[in-house]
Amino acid sequence: MAIVNRKIVLASRPEGMVSESDFRLEEEEVRELEDGEVLLHTLYLSVDPYMRGRMSDRKSYADPVGIGEVMTGEIVTRVEQSRNAKYQAGDVVAARLGWQEYAISDGAGLRKIDPSSAPISTALNVLGMIGATAYFGLLDVCKAKEGDTVVVSGAAGAVGSVVGQIAKIKGCRVVGTTGSDEKLKWITEELGFDAGINYKTSESLIKDLARHCPDGINCYFDNVGGPVTDAVFPLLALNSHIAICGQISMYNATKAELGPRFLWNLIPNRATIKGFLVFDYYDRFPEAMKDLTEWLLSGKIKYQENVIEGLENAPKAFIGLFHGENTGKQLVHVSD
Amino acid sequence: MAIVNRKIVLASRPEGMVSESDFRLEEEEVRELEDGEVLLHTLYLSVDPYMRGRMSDRKSYADPVGIGEVMTGEIVTRVEQSRNAKYQAGDVVAARLGWQEYAISDGAGLRKIDPSSAPISTALNVLGMIGATAYFGLLDVCKAKEGDTVVVSGAAGAVGSVVGQIAKIKGCRVVGTTGSDEKLKWITEELGFDAGINYKTSESLIKDLARHCPDGINCYFDNVGGPVTDAVFPLLALNSHIAICGQISMYNATKAELGPRFLWNLIPNRATIKGFLVFDYYDRFPEAMKDLTEWLLSGKIKYQENVIEGLENAPKAFIGLFHGENTGKQLVHVSD
Repeated sequence: MAIVNRKIVLASRPEGMVSESDFRLEEEEVRELEDGEVLLHTLYLSVDPYMRGRMSDRKSYADPVGIGEVMTGEIVTRVEQSRNAKYQAGDVVAARLGWQEYAISDGAGLRKIDPSSAPISTALNVLGMIGATAYFGLLDVCKAKEGDTVVVSGAAGAVGSVVGQIAKIKGCRVVGTTGSDEKLKWITEELGFDAGINYKTSESLIKDLARHCPDGINCYFDNVGGPVTDAVFPLLALNSHIAICGQISMYNATKAELGPRFLWNLIPNRATIKGFLVFDYYDRFPEAMKDLTEWLLSGKIKYQENVIEGLENAPKAFIGLFHGENTGKQLVHVSD
Repeated sequence: MAIVNRKIVLASRPEGMVSESDFRLEEEEVRELEDGEVLLHTLYLSVDPYMRGRMSDRKSYADPVGIGEVMTGEIVTRVEQSRNAKYQAGDVVAARLGWQEYAISDGAGLRKIDPSSAPISTALNVLGMIGATAYFGLLDVCKAKEGDTVVVSGAAGAVGSVVGQIAKIKGCRVVGTTGSDEKLKWITEELGFDAGINYKTSESLIKDLARHCPDGINCYFDNVGGPVTDAVFPLLALNSHIAICGQISMYNATKAELGPRFLWNLIPNRATIKGFLVFDYYDRFPEAMKDLTEWLLSGKIKYQENVIEGLENAPKAFIGLFHGENTGKQLVHVSD
């Protein structure tokens, strides 16, 4: 009996806030494998803010998803059938094969996962792109070192929560901004952040940040942009570094938002701002994975997952990212 | 007979646009020299946009000028009397001794100038802080290299005009923005810029820049800020570098101006923005001076001076900088 694949495709390019109607669930029969191929059955898929960019046809670092094409994204998946000598049925691998239940691969871009060392979902989180983004963004772009004051926006998000914990491991003072008191409690009481600010209830982000960063801000890891980021610039320390990892507050904007001009702040502080993509660090991933695995297994890095059940709910899980519904990593559980 | 010094002191801290009433001319008798000291007679003084920052009491990289204190700044000056073995009457030196006719120095911070190699006023221009700012900002901060497209704002100003010419020497395509057709003509016809834009008459800075930078912008040297800089961000090339040298359009602002948020542009392009101060390159000045002297004497770098006569007119010369009255370097001729 033929296997039927269910997949989520891009139905339309969103104008402004993405909605469920921008996606469509489709079914198709899975074809027979050819030599060298494997059939993969998705276990978990990851939804991440960067995917909003792929839904637009704006020029960017990667081609946009075409209308009718499967939504792009990382998955953890299991080999169901194999005609590739490197893989056998039952192997668990991480791949970038998008929002679908089944996929055929020639093996390119697959990464084997050892289910006995850590839960397989961590391959989409601390032990995957999320962890590497936090690691290189903080240590290479922000150049965080012992004694620095590090501010991270989106601190209870997947990347932000790892950034803060690595910064603590490295001996930094860490202040996070987040969008609820519950998240604030998690980052300060569970993850060890020195302080946190709920940007939705803060009466003055600058005053609150200044209070928590009495020596100024040496490193700012930005996932969010907008008013939180505006408040950082007047508080920069000498030779400070700002990593622009994401700007989630902008991704659904329909026109250029205005904010206070701040570039003059960079001159007296000789501050550096750099936009970065984790893909540029691909060659150095093993270095990050070695440290992150050690920290995860020794309990120095903790994580939280929001898991939504069922491929058909991937759009809802994705849209929730823009409403701050997730604490930690947002995942979709597709099959056991 | 005692020598009388005339000096321009800060009378009040300006709110918004600086005016002549923020300065006051004072006279005082010059005291006798002590051992090790020299009496200096100012020949030229330099007015530069950064001095606006020293008139405010806002925290910055240098202490503000106090009310009643001599306005800070670079001068070219001649030794009148010497009780210091390293200097003799007639020596010409560059110094940071401010807006006054006479000054006493113990020799610290003086830099001897050879009047036979180049006009002495170039020590306040191409062969001084101006040239070093252009040199390190373009080559070290912007990392300009052969084949790059370089955009410079304030292109007909003292720093900008040198930036563009160094970029041409290094084999870059160079586009300048400036505020008059006369300046535009100077940078393109005399200095060799590939193209220029009069930002005051451009109907679309983005379209004009895009037309002149068909492969995107690799390096942006910013003296100005504001709408010109806004137009650069959508046109950045991969791995581009932006040097924030000045933001003259902001210096007299009374409140934070708003502009379009642009940080998201940095991510796909992995762009870097860095604020810098030439003082951080002090140890490398000889390297810049060697190249700049060679380029100046061989005619590869040209310059233009706006010279206003008389110490009493220094405030007027300074204020003119913010109205774009200068083409090239603005100087005040104090004595022969």
